[in-house]
Amino acid sequence: MTTTLPVFDLAAIETAATPEIVLESVRDALIAHAEGRTTVPPPLHMDFPEAGGDCQVKAGWITDTADFTVKIATGFYSRPGLGMPSNHHGLVCLVSAHTGMIRAILDDRGMLTAWRTAAAGALVTHVMARSTARTLGLFGTGEQACLQAVWLARLRPISRILVHGRNLHNAAALCEELHKNGLPARTASAQQAAGADMIITTTAATAPVLNAADVPEGAHVTGIGTDTPHKNELPPELFHRAQLIATDDRSQCLHHGDFGHAVRAGATAQDSDTAAGLLLRTPLDRPDAAITVADLTGVGALDAALASAVLNRLMP
Amino acid sequence: MTTTLPVFDLAAIETAATPEIVLESVRDALIAHAEGRTTVPPPLHMDFPEAGGDCQVKAGWITDTADFTVKIATGFYSRPGLGMPSNHHGLVCLVSAHTGMIRAILDDRGMLTAWRTAAAGALVTHVMARSTARTLGLFGTGEQACLQAVWLARLRPISRILVHGRNLHNAAALCEELHKNGLPARTASAQQAAGADMIITTTAATAPVLNAADVPEGAHVTGIGTDTPHKNELPPELFHRAQLIATDDRSQCLHHGDFGHAVRAGATAQDSDTAAGLLLRTPLDRPDAAITVADLTGVGALDAALASAVLNRLMP
Repeated sequence: MTTTLPVFDLAAIETAATPEIVLESVRDALIAHAEGRTTVPPPLHMDFPEAGGDCQVKAGWITDTADFTVKIATGFYSRPGLGMPSNHHGLVCLVSAHTGMIRAILDDRGMLTAWRTAAAGALVTHVMARSTARTLGLFGTGEQACLQAVWLARLRPISRILVHGRNLHNAAALCEELHKNGLPARTASAQQAAGADMIITTTAATAPVLNAADVPEGAHVTGIGTDTPHKNELPPELFHRAQLIATDDRSQCLHHGDFGHAVRAGATAQDSDTAAGLLLRTPLDRPDAAITVADLTGVGALDAALASAVLNRLMP
Repeated sequence: MTTTLPVFDLAAIETAATPEIVLESVRDALIAHAEGRTTVPPPLHMDFPEAGGDCQVKAGWITDTADFTVKIATGFYSRPGLGMPSNHHGLVCLVSAHTGMIRAILDDRGMLTAWRTAAAGALVTHVMARSTARTLGLFGTGEQACLQAVWLARLRPISRILVHGRNLHNAAALCEELHKNGLPARTASAQQAAGADMIITTTAATAPVLNAADVPEGAHVTGIGTDTPHKNELPPELFHRAQLIATDDRSQCLHHGDFGHAVRAGATAQDSDTAAGLLLRTPLDRPDAAITVADLTGVGALDAALASAVLNRLMP
């Protein structure tokens, strides 16, 4: 075998991965995962404490599709104490599920992960929030905070974004970035941001970033940032108050999500959640006064679905 | 970041990975692993039962070196019932342990894994066998059986190779291949092959391929093929008879090696093994009548050391 391994760079991937392609494949993958039509082995994880870095390898397969994916994602923090990501890298390998042959590499530098994470957050927030919800509270000031708002705005109008970050300079910079994307944003206190109709958290926090009591009735909260057992963004009391809890993968969320923290704190039962994909398949009737919460830890099946869709456009 | 990801193909890798480079880096990595100077997370594993395939992702890092590796290896068996590998594929990603940046891809199609496995088997077999051992019994007729003999012959003279395979045609074909490499080989029964001075097993068997009683005093046996809990090449009684047992990684060998089968059968204690790297660091005095056994399940640190050495030659 001496054929050349196709490697697609970010420019090619950006052209192929239109918002429609991303939203559709992420939605389909969340539904497939909820229906048990995916294979997602436990991720491989490595820590590099001295460099403030870690490496996650996630694999995923939508059962009976042609390809599966193995995704490498690294996050190295130049200033670990601040929890500020300075470097995210990664790539996605597409592998034939029939022959084991590596079909292509998407050298996306982590972009597909950022997009599928944003698309999953937006889809789940949109389907769970009140139809009249218009204001968005954002916790965190990184790239993913910006993407969550931009992708949610593709699904419903947003009248105001309240950005809360511990670093005011970063919060102001994110507001600038949101303005460039045509979105109205201003910096806010944690209490103000927690008072929005929709709240999305995208931090690397190790303790809750908001008070459950500050979240009003009728609000929806989506937690994105908690992806290891020592991280924690949402307080257990919020899960206790919630009338509906969604997870993208129950066992993952129990193991290293905010849902797991809440269950271990006795604030909710370990089977109190609904699979996010089921809500996407059949949107629910939602009492206007209910608080709803989604805990998304990211499942490898999303990578598989999105990378396959992209590759099908690049190598039709 | 729009720099191009360097991808090196098999031809470039073959030029850089000389036998000296491979043996030296594998030896160093086994020693580093035995001394606790490596980081090797549990592998990621996926099964594709309908296609008779599986995918293993292994990561490894020699502590304080510049790069770590993430390796994808697939094995798809066209005829699962026969346990005959028809397709092995793979690649190795080298990642900076300082920044998380993916430095390069070695598109080795699994060749570096094949070589490091052969080099590890040869190094450990050579250091554990009697200095006067000259005959080699080979169980299995695949690529790795051939490589084990070729690499061992780089370390000591081999006077006769006895090849045992369930498929006679494949066994004869392997003898042909060994002849082409200047090695004297003939097909043999399991009993004959088990009677050699050195025995190496490289099958995908799920039940022992030899009888412990057929292994003579003074022989050394290295098991290579057992890499999942349901595979098994060496009988527990062989471990019971052995005066020295070496493992490349105790916990891996307990979990999915022949050593684990023997421990669970009560044939030996779970701390009865010595780290193979310690034997490479300080060769032992070996009673001529002793039976010795090595169980090698393959550790990610070897991939890291070899891939780094190769990349240093390709991108000096």
